[in-house]
Amino acid sequence: MIDRRKFIKQGSLLTTAGLVASAVPFSGMAQSGKNMQPESKSKKSKWLDGSRLVVSVSMQFEAGGQPENAESPFPQNMEKGYKDLPATTWYEYGYKEGIPRMLDNWDKLGVKITSHMVGSAVLKNPALAKEIVDRGHEAAAHGMNWATQYTMSYNEEKKFIKDGVDAIKKITGFDAIGYNANWLRRGENTLKILQELGFLYHIDDLSRDEPFIQKVNGKDFVTVPYTLRCNDIQLIEGKNFSVDQFVHQVKMEFDQLYEEAANRRRQMSISFHDRIGGTPQMVQAAKELFTYIKKHEGVSFKRKDEIAKMALEDKTTIIE
Amino acid sequence: MIDRRKFIKQGSLLTTAGLVASAVPFSGMAQSGKNMQPESKSKKSKWLDGSRLVVSVSMQFEAGGQPENAESPFPQNMEKGYKDLPATTWYEYGYKEGIPRMLDNWDKLGVKITSHMVGSAVLKNPALAKEIVDRGHEAAAHGMNWATQYTMSYNEEKKFIKDGVDAIKKITGFDAIGYNANWLRRGENTLKILQELGFLYHIDDLSRDEPFIQKVNGKDFVTVPYTLRCNDIQLIEGKNFSVDQFVHQVKMEFDQLYEEAANRRRQMSISFHDRIGGTPQMVQAAKELFTYIKKHEGVSFKRKDEIAKMALEDKTTIIE
Amino acid sequence: MIDRRKFIKQGSLLTTAGLVASAVPFSGMAQSGKNMQPESKSKKSKWLDGSRLVVSVSMQFEAGGQPENAESPFPQNMEKGYKDLPATTWYEYGYKEGIPRMLDNWDKLGVKITSHMVGSAVLKNPALAKEIVDRGHEAAAHGMNWATQYTMSYNEEKKFIKDGVDAIKKITGFDAIGYNANWLRRGENTLKILQELGFLYHIDDLSRDEPFIQKVNGKDFVTVPYTLRCNDIQLIEGKNFSVDQFVHQVKMEFDQLYEEAANRRRQMSISFHDRIGGTPQMVQAAKELFTYIKKHEGVSFKRKDEIAKMALEDKTTIIE
Amino acid sequence: MIDRRKFIKQGSLLTTAGLVASAVPFSGMAQSGKNMQPESKSKKSKWLDGSRLVVSVSMQFEAGGQPENAESPFPQNMEKGYKDLPATTWYEYGYKEGIPRMLDNWDKLGVKITSHMVGSAVLKNPALAKEIVDRGHEAAAHGMNWATQYTMSYNEEKKFIKDGVDAIKKITGFDAIGYNANWLRRGENTLKILQELGFLYHIDDLSRDEPFIQKVNGKDFVTVPYTLRCNDIQLIEGKNFSVDQFVHQVKMEFDQLYEEAANRRRQMSISFHDRIGGTPQMVQAAKELFTYIKKHEGVSFKRKDEIAKMALEDKTTIIE
Repeated sequence: MIDRRKFIKQGSLLTTAGLVASAVPFSGMAQSGKNMQPESKSKKSKWLDGSRLVVSVSMQFEAGGQPENAESPFPQNMEKGYKDLPATTWYEYGYKEGIPRMLDNWDKLGVKITSHMVGSAVLKNPALAKEIVDRGHEAAAHGMNWATQYTMSYNEEKKFIKDGVDAIKKITGFDAIGYNANWLRRGENTLKILQELGFLYHIDDLSRDEPFIQKVNGKDFVTVPYTLRCNDIQLIEGKNFSVDQFVHQVKMEFDQLYEEAANRRRQMSISFHDRIGGTPQMVQAAKELFTYIKKHEGVSFKRKDEIAKMALEDKTTIIE
Repeated sequence: MIDRRKFIKQGSLLTTAGLVASAVPFSGMAQSGKNMQPESKSKKSKWLDGSRLVVSVSMQFEAGGQPENAESPFPQNMEKGYKDLPATTWYEYGYKEGIPRMLDNWDKLGVKITSHMVGSAVLKNPALAKEIVDRGHEAAAHGMNWATQYTMSYNEEKKFIKDGVDAIKKITGFDAIGYNANWLRRGENTLKILQELGFLYHIDDLSRDEPFIQKVNGKDFVTVPYTLRCNDIQLIEGKNFSVDQFVHQVKMEFDQLYEEAANRRRQMSISFHDRIGGTPQMVQAAKELFTYIKKHEGVSFKRKDEIAKMALEDKTTIIE
Repeated sequence: MIDRRKFIKQGSLLTTAGLVASAVPFSGMAQSGKNMQPESKSKKSKWLDGSRLVVSVSMQFEAGGQPENAESPFPQNMEKGYKDLPATTWYEYGYKEGIPRMLDNWDKLGVKITSHMVGSAVLKNPALAKEIVDRGHEAAAHGMNWATQYTMSYNEEKKFIKDGVDAIKKITGFDAIGYNANWLRRGENTLKILQELGFLYHIDDLSRDEPFIQKVNGKDFVTVPYTLRCNDIQLIEGKNFSVDQFVHQVKMEFDQLYEEAANRRRQMSISFHDRIGGTPQMVQAAKELFTYIKKHEGVSFKRKDEIAKMALEDKTTIIE
Repeated sequence: MIDRRKFIKQGSLLTTAGLVASAVPFSGMAQSGKNMQPESKSKKSKWLDGSRLVVSVSMQFEAGGQPENAESPFPQNMEKGYKDLPATTWYEYGYKEGIPRMLDNWDKLGVKITSHMVGSAVLKNPALAKEIVDRGHEAAAHGMNWATQYTMSYNEEKKFIKDGVDAIKKITGFDAIGYNANWLRRGENTLKILQELGFLYHIDDLSRDEPFIQKVNGKDFVTVPYTLRCNDIQLIEGKNFSVDQFVHQVKMEFDQLYEEAANRRRQMSISFHDRIGGTPQMVQAAKELFTYIKKHEGVSFKRKDEIAKMALEDKTTIIE
């Protein structure tokens, strides 16, 4: 795992001109009192590379790794002892149609995303996993399977995480440095284990609209915050929101964050799952949304590894 | 049942000029690795009859065949031992108003659809079942009633399926060659039984946006994929989606598939149930949607039997 | 109760010129086969008074008669033995704000509606019940309280219904001839009891978009069909649909029925509950909807007693 | 607590010119019969300060005071004995991003709101609580924590309420005179206790669209009515309504109340929770809504303490 960390330290992220150091350092404010910093008064604070707003896109690679009779839009009333065959085909859609369609869309839009890969899903569809990385996207770890990670013992969990990241490395050649737990549900030991294994960041936190740093095992560890409200799994699932509701809602999220970003560091997170975000209607939605977003000056789409590294290098990153 | 298969082989489907054989055969790609074919890179691959996009419409004929106190928009809290009388009238709407209204609409729009007919519903309303076929639509089998097919023994299930298709033949004169299980929930033996009984295709699969072939009992058997997301039962049910949400969502689905269809074979599936899709508001929705779709060049509405036969004749059909 | 029936026979409903007898009597078609009439082929069949489309509006008068801790938008997790006080105020809104607001709206729009009155609610707010009738609206019976009517014995149910209609008569002076069971859930004896008590019609049926006649105790009894899909209780409840969804959906319902009404008899049903349809946002919705509907030629808003009587006089009414 | 009441009596609220005494006193009408007043006939009745419509905005300050594993948009299926860590970060968002963002928005819009503060949340984030008051908003009490208040004994509840209001006083210096129970669920003793402790009003009532007075312990006590339908917690929660639905619905609410306000006293209530209403998309929604509302003449945004005091001084306030 040491390689990954080295890899990170080698390349400088700061290839963009116009770095803006904020006059009043943000981390200083954050350190002045736990949870009590008057953030609403905070002064101008932008990104190290000069971006006004950073948009971070997730693409879950999970289908194929789901447990038998995993939750789906079908009525959850199967008789015991039988397989939910059509639900399985709903998942298959994720790798047969969903991911390929999204990959084409990201290429057309010129967007690089972070793919959260379940280890067993990678092993089931290795060519597709590799293609994601080959097209320039980030592979991040997402557990070896869909097990309930927060109930595992320390050693059990460490093996569980390592198996997943090893599967990604073996198939795609990518050194994952980011982590996402199933349904974001990490346990009390998760961050420590991630730090030991060489990870730089996790995303299982909804508390801020910008990255921040925590000390884990005495070292800096980054949170690149995630989203439920601009996330297809929360909005869709086959019945909650319609696609046009998703589009309107995410647009309003962007409008507000873009406005705020004139004066402080803001990150927007959007998430798509293989079997949901990869449907024609949702890819159409992403196209509409991203085309809208790209019309705004100063917006950059970034992989989460880029965001984490930039946060580590930036002296003004919030420290909690 | 043999008659049906003969009937199929007799008539050539290829009455349309301009067949386009794809340069890189799709089935070849599919055979190169299970679930790993790089579909997103696939070259131009259209339909045998030259269609750019094929739209497949389903109309469920189920009302009247439902079990007592079947699920409805009413609160599911009936005291035991009593009949849910208003829920019964909700189902009756399906054959008294719903199907007749949709039939008129399909005529006005010039669209031929596939009607998935429950055997007992056919026996209860024979004249209406016959009228569907007389107006040029396809009758496909949908079980003898709403029983949980996947828990049946082999012989029990075979009789269950045969009873349903026999009822359709007796009443409408139509040889059904397509099958749809209740809530898509087929069992482990279903495809084998269907192949034995002379069926050519089933629809209980959501994994692709185009038809594909599987070997069943050593012979080709077609999947004409179905949909939950452009399906009134998932969207409506009396409270999930409103009709305008359905319209927006299905439009976005079409826009994406039509775009993709410039370069590869794409099928769009839309589904309407007698008691839901047959309401005035949903027929209005279908009218709006299909009028929009028909403005696009190269779109053809096809019955699922036509799609299945075309897939069988086409050397480039995906083989799984 | 005999008075009510007399009252009905006295007044001729046919004060409107231009009665249109349909060339092919509809009831004849309906008699040709149970549930098998080819309705989609039916010829021109309009209303006896020449209306093209009849719109029937319901206003439930229930609040104040609800049982303790009746269902509300609040979380249904009250500790046992305590009163859900804020839920009670949600109901109180129905008579303090909801009904008065709707009454003003109906006056402005020039619409007469049918108010389905729970007996105990009438006794709790007698002045308001009387005002509804004084302003020209119909009072219909809706049970003495919210009890589960379909589990009652014959005699118990007869008393239950009679108590309710007597309360209405006593307070408002109106002879109710129409009935609506709680959640439409009538029992096996309900229609017989209603006929014995002198009622002319009930609404607990969703099976058609026009009134029809059944023989009950050997006499004609009318069903004036009701709706769940253009009904605020199904759509709103505090979280299912938003008000703008309701507006769009009901508009689409109207558009289709108005179109169909050029060739056959069509009735549209819309329903508003005191505590839901009486909120400012829903009254705004009703105003928008009815203003839209009223722009169309030949549409008449009618009370359900008018519809029932017209159906009885009309030789072409469907007989089931 | 006596100080608070004194404070109230000192300052005259009537600094606005053009007071309009209604010709027919409203309270007179209300006294004519319990729950039977023909409100729909009521004459012109405006606010004491001449406002046409008063809009009352709530901002809940609750995050940080929630119990372990409190309800959140995450699946409610945690294994027993484990902490729902990501759900905690969902709450943290309320004080880290939500409240600061809303405070900036209220400043930009020039709106003063009422912040319902949970005592333990105030103690956890004192600087932020103080900032709310320092920026001119009202601090109202919202219990010491999220306990089920209606199951407490008299003394237990009194201590619970007092602890909460004392926390607010200690941290912010503000004498809270308004109360809101968790999920509005007050018990049978709550109003008596509040009156004893010097509170002037509570909001746990949905029954009217204007304030009213009740006698509690023989003295006037005001209800400033609250809302569920223009409340982010009911509409959002991560899946019920999308933000654009919220916007449309609240706009329709305003349109109706503004129209009615030409002839009688009307209050509109809107509510935002730290972790929901404080998201970028909801702040964008509030901006859109309030910008729309402010274009209308005669609308004033008021804190609930101002509304309560005006209701007490006004001889025409409804007395129940």
